Amino acid sequence: MSLTSLTKTEDLTGQKIIISGGGIGGASGALALALRGADVTLYERAPEFKEVGAGLQIGPHGVKMLEKWGLKEKAVASGYLPDNMQFRDAITRETILTMDFGEQFREHYGAPYLVIHRSDLLNLLVEAAREAGATLHNGIQVEGADTREDGVTVHLRHRGDDSTEDLEADLLVAFDGIHSVFRKELCQDEPVPSAYVAYRGTSVLPEDPDMKGLNSVIGYIGPRCHFIQYPLRGGELLNQVAVFQSPRYLDSLINGTEVPEDWGNNDEFKGAFDHTNEFIQGRLGSMWLDTWWQMSDREPLPDWVVSDRVIVMGDAAHPPLQYIASGAVMAMEDSECLALYASEAAAGGEVNWGEVLREVSDERAPRTSRIQQTSRFWGELWHVDGLSRLIRNETFRNAEKSGWYRYADWLWDYDAARREYLRDPARGKLPEALQEWEYNLHHIARERENLKGQQVTV
Amino acid sequence: MSLTSLTKTEDLTGQKIIISGGGIGGASGALALALRGADVTLYERAPEFKEVGAGLQIGPHGVKMLEKWGLKEKAVASGYLPDNMQFRDAITRETILTMDFGEQFREHYGAPYLVIHRSDLLNLLVEAAREAGATLHNGIQVEGADTREDGVTVHLRHRGDDSTEDLEADLLVAFDGIHSVFRKELCQDEPVPSAYVAYRGTSVLPEDPDMKGLNSVIGYIGPRCHFIQYPLRGGELLNQVAVFQSPRYLDSLINGTEVPEDWGNNDEFKGAFDHTNEFIQGRLGSMWLDTWWQMSDREPLPDWVVSDRVIVMGDAAHPPLQYIASGAVMAMEDSECLALYASEAAAGGEVNWGEVLREVSDERAPRTSRIQQTSRFWGELWHVDGLSRLIRNETFRNAEKSGWYRYADWLWDYDAARREYLRDPARGKLPEALQEWEYNLHHIARERENLKGQQVTV
Repeated sequence: MSLTSLTKTEDLTGQKIIISGGGIGGASGALALALRGADVTLYERAPEFKEVGAGLQIGPHGVKMLEKWGLKEKAVASGYLPDNMQFRDAITRETILTMDFGEQFREHYGAPYLVIHRSDLLNLLVEAAREAGATLHNGIQVEGADTREDGVTVHLRHRGDDSTEDLEADLLVAFDGIHSVFRKELCQDEPVPSAYVAYRGTSVLPEDPDMKGLNSVIGYIGPRCHFIQYPLRGGELLNQVAVFQSPRYLDSLINGTEVPEDWGNNDEFKGAFDHTNEFIQGRLGSMWLDTWWQMSDREPLPDWVVSDRVIVMGDAAHPPLQYIASGAVMAMEDSECLALYASEAAAGGEVNWGEVLREVSDERAPRTSRIQQTSRFWGELWHVDGLSRLIRNETFRNAEKSGWYRYADWLWDYDAARREYLRDPARGKLPEALQEWEYNLHHIARERENLKGQQVTV
Repeated sequence: MSLTSLTKTEDLTGQKIIISGGGIGGASGALALALRGADVTLYERAPEFKEVGAGLQIGPHGVKMLEKWGLKEKAVASGYLPDNMQFRDAITRETILTMDFGEQFREHYGAPYLVIHRSDLLNLLVEAAREAGATLHNGIQVEGADTREDGVTVHLRHRGDDSTEDLEADLLVAFDGIHSVFRKELCQDEPVPSAYVAYRGTSVLPEDPDMKGLNSVIGYIGPRCHFIQYPLRGGELLNQVAVFQSPRYLDSLINGTEVPEDWGNNDEFKGAFDHTNEFIQGRLGSMWLDTWWQMSDREPLPDWVVSDRVIVMGDAAHPPLQYIASGAVMAMEDSECLALYASEAAAGGEVNWGEVLREVSDERAPRTSRIQQTSRFWGELWHVDGLSRLIRNETFRNAEKSGWYRYADWLWDYDAARREYLRDPARGKLPEALQEWEYNLHHIARERENLKGQQVTV
């Protein structure tokens, strides 16, 4: 399968669309909709378009979106196409699974596997959205919206002078992130901290004697921690991520005491990899210590439709844990799905936005639910200890022998045009073999309820 | 590979050998040695030759011994050759691994997989040993032995009139079981209870509406328990075994309190399978309730040579947990190994028993050590819960896809004549991927030492 890039169409000409949030999700939404001729304006409250973090992994499901939007060549040029992904045991350093990203992979999934700096991707999307005719503003926050029969009134606040403004539009797309204002209208939930924290760092790859020539994504997975390495920017930059479970966070959760705000801090980082291979320990010196990322997700949201004229998307709808590298890609899929379904609806005459949003939500919510659930599962699988770790390693070795595509097809071989989740929402469930699996943090919370007040002497 | 049965030889003519213990091990030892022309007398303290329990699984490594001793046809006639072994998840009842025992299996391992009633196998061995010229006595216990330069004086006690008797012999082989008198001269260890207890039961298979026609060994494996079913006696008898972890035993171990003598009793049995599939629960009514088997093994014993004229073998040397069905087979392998090496030594003239025993011990101790360790591991793998169970299930599914022979070759493709463990004692270790594994009961004991006296509030 090979995609051809869209040339700009006029399908949505005359539709005024406002996007809240200028991250990868919002920018991709602006691009996908502008490419269909919509009149798109994006508002980002931050003073500049900026992504936190460094490297980003984009599976073929995301590369296909970039290709469709005409950005594949540029993304590849500023990113890196790794030869493979290697999972290694963080204690023994043994490679337990190599996922080859060569010819056969590209043919099977219709696209390569890409790693790219988050800022580089965001810049590409912002630039392309502008070229496609979208208008993107910084320093302006979308605070709310009132839906009317024939449109939506969007309330803005200019962060410079704190002035407010109301705008009329046909549609508001809320890509306003994990702390979304608009999600609140659908659901009163809070982010779910994972107890895991990430340290990141980049360095000059060709000057690194141990790592130069690296052309893989390497993931060392071990008890309660993992460590990722891959090249960025054509091999000029080395991206490293060190992730571990915060003992202080976990203690608070188990004992029901107050969670320390700085869980995962430098003191915890210091000892967090002592049980791993010396090689990994030797690499930690180059991680940034001034910031660490406390990783959270949210429970899946089954319905994204705030009103006939407002929908939440991206992290506002489905913030995931990062383990299957699909946060940014899901947002890109959301964007393309919305633009596609709206274009198709427009071909029939007037766009009924209520119907389009319903269709998009019904296709996307099951898929992103499965991705969120699988991310949690995948993280737990990486972090097991003892006997479980030995079984996990053997499962990985076997997956290489018997072919691992069957585990990845559902994720990487996706096309919103097929409407597979719409037709069969059960695709959004974890596979049969994982139906009984319970997220460890849910388990701990449940155990805590059961044991409350009991004393155990050992 | 196909074996031809031994015809009786004269290799050990004139060698007077006493065997202590008339279980499957002792009887097989009497047979193997008598078949080489030795003058064998066996003493069993019990008033009759009798095996406790019911069904016994004999892998191809054991069937090859029976074939060598001319017993294969009879054993197959009184036992059953299952088509396959099916591992099923005890909660969902899903078949996660089918090990086919057909043509290809028999060719690969040189023998079929046999299940047989323990009493039937013992009877066959006792009868064959007698036919080969061995003398087998009941009601007489071997209490000790004194080794001289040119032989061994064996001390007997007649259990009827409590009289004692001393006999001279060239060799004493102590197949005196898990509570061996002679092992004490090598090692002061105690049996290691596994916390698991077995209930057994047999019933008439053709009259059982749910099970008639069963031609497999079925093992339901689940959290802290398992349940085994297979036919015996040509399909006339259904053999069932229900095994579970005793909460009372485990509590005692964790808390350091006194172990109740009747751990695993009927009260514990009652609730032990409540978390498993209804089908299994429905089968438990036919288990015998008047006896239960508290399952123990011992740590591997690296040296079996009590003196130049005395060796321990069978359960006296290596009592295993039952999980890889090799307890009886190891004893048969011991017997054939001793008879073979002694015959080969005799071909060079006078038998130097000290040298023969050393060679036998150096070949057999590493092999049986690996079997004992693997049995512990295999049991833990069956009994895992939560995420580990789901990974285990996938490992089993994958093993079927990618071929499981590689996991079993070391166990089932063995021939003492190859002297593989003598040449490379490292074969006695668990494979690389399991080097770090720690037996859970060791882990608990170690944790207990670490946490002694601490109080944990949850």
